[in-house]
Amino acid sequence: MTELERLEEHRVFDGVQYKYRHQSKTLGCKMTFSLFLPNKETFTEPPLLWWLSGLTCTDDNFTHKAGAQRSAARLGMAMIIPDTSPRGHGIADSEDYDLGQGAGFYVNATEEPWSAHYNMYDYIMDELTDLVRAEFNLNGPEFISGHSMGGYGALLLGLKNPDRFKSITAFAPIVNPSQVPWGIKAFTNYLGENKDSWAQWDTLELMKQYSGKKTPILIDQGDADQFYSKELEPAKFVEAAEERQYPVTLRIQKGHDHSYFTISTFIEEHLEFHMNELNK
Amino acid sequence: MTELERLEEHRVFDGVQYKYRHQSKTLGCKMTFSLFLPNKETFTEPPLLWWLSGLTCTDDNFTHKAGAQRSAARLGMAMIIPDTSPRGHGIADSEDYDLGQGAGFYVNATEEPWSAHYNMYDYIMDELTDLVRAEFNLNGPEFISGHSMGGYGALLLGLKNPDRFKSITAFAPIVNPSQVPWGIKAFTNYLGENKDSWAQWDTLELMKQYSGKKTPILIDQGDADQFYSKELEPAKFVEAAEERQYPVTLRIQKGHDHSYFTISTFIEEHLEFHMNELNK
Repeated sequence: MTELERLEEHRVFDGVQYKYRHQSKTLGCKMTFSLFLPNKETFTEPPLLWWLSGLTCTDDNFTHKAGAQRSAARLGMAMIIPDTSPRGHGIADSEDYDLGQGAGFYVNATEEPWSAHYNMYDYIMDELTDLVRAEFNLNGPEFISGHSMGGYGALLLGLKNPDRFKSITAFAPIVNPSQVPWGIKAFTNYLGENKDSWAQWDTLELMKQYSGKKTPILIDQGDADQFYSKELEPAKFVEAAEERQYPVTLRIQKGHDHSYFTISTFIEEHLEFHMNELNK
Repeated sequence: MTELERLEEHRVFDGVQYKYRHQSKTLGCKMTFSLFLPNKETFTEPPLLWWLSGLTCTDDNFTHKAGAQRSAARLGMAMIIPDTSPRGHGIADSEDYDLGQGAGFYVNATEEPWSAHYNMYDYIMDELTDLVRAEFNLNGPEFISGHSMGGYGALLLGLKNPDRFKSITAFAPIVNPSQVPWGIKAFTNYLGENKDSWAQWDTLELMKQYSGKKTPILIDQGDADQFYSKELEPAKFVEAAEERQYPVTLRIQKGHDHSYFTISTFIEEHLEFHMNELNK
């Protein structure tokens, strides 16, 4: 089993916030992740929320800025927050904030130089999943959520794995990466020029073809988000969902932007949305 | 009047988080500060909480990590968060994290090279006070709070100005800077070798001599704080207060450390403590 190095441990509300480092076989580098556990005596088998972060983030952004521990401690929910890409010397990178380290896009890259390390989909779905189950005994129900690139990741992993995640929520997700600048840049580099290979990683395309179990989805989008019309456009996703008779709740949040201030405002409602699915 | 440059504006809960920059006459440099305003229609004359941050912090740490906006929005409280020292090229500094920029200690320095710029006490009590009253019409009741060096700052400004602040709260304050490594280093540099000049800036000494109005004080101290016995020792302050028959509430928080995770856990209770004083 992977050797886990505990980097941080902080009491927060009635739970504990941890940060760990481990050697990832899938990514071929050391990776950090953060893990929140609610009170172990009160909540012996907590459900687990996966939080996927956005461009430039590490696992710290959500842990430090979202204030989610308050609600997670109250509801009895564990939370795991992976990093957003492989990291380190010798790992392919770019000077741009939206490509390379900090911008893994939750896909498995097929193109050099990225394909050697950029396999975030497999890392999360397999390696980190096995680790968190074995090391922390988190074998209960799972939910997934995320922001921007990570909101896309939450929709991607959720739609591809309907038996795995009970519910999906997203803040300002990149719903159609094949058609917007951030996604086109990432997919061209990680997946290649041939766009045929992109569809399996594009959440709008996945929804257009979707015929599986309809995992409940909640999306919050601020109308003062500077990336709203250029990179995000969640209404397209809702429209495709409607054609599949797949109910998606999209909430346009007045005056809210792309920052963690928006996440901190609504994260409690996202956690409650997930817990409500558990109780159905 | 000072020209204010608005750097950021974010909707958060039912309020707005701002960040500003202005040219400070008192400090002789450009300074940033953050300001939270609750819903202007619901709360037309909000009381104002001053938050003083700890070593290495800017105004961003509290704004991003404490999650205080949730409670402030609900209670209808404005919050102003100054930076922790003068900043910039040409401003005296040190390579150490606990001296110079990021470590102003809320005093007026008398020793060179610090005395030219390090006048955080006057900056907050006079210049920033005038600015916030004139520019934002915040002329209502005031409270003060802070963390570590800023917890010391909150006690210092609060005890020196009993007619100004309705109540004082602190997280892990440096109550006796004259006698602990952080404070001795700062005071020696900013105030000089002659310790006679230190007493007026030492909150334990101020409490020992105190005979003014007894502003209510709440202190939270984590028992897993790595600086608890070396730098903080709040029990000394409570003991001195008891001798002056000055009631101070000290809460030792089990398992909590020196981080913002502790602040995020208890900040709501601090804001409620202040609001309760207002309602008495």
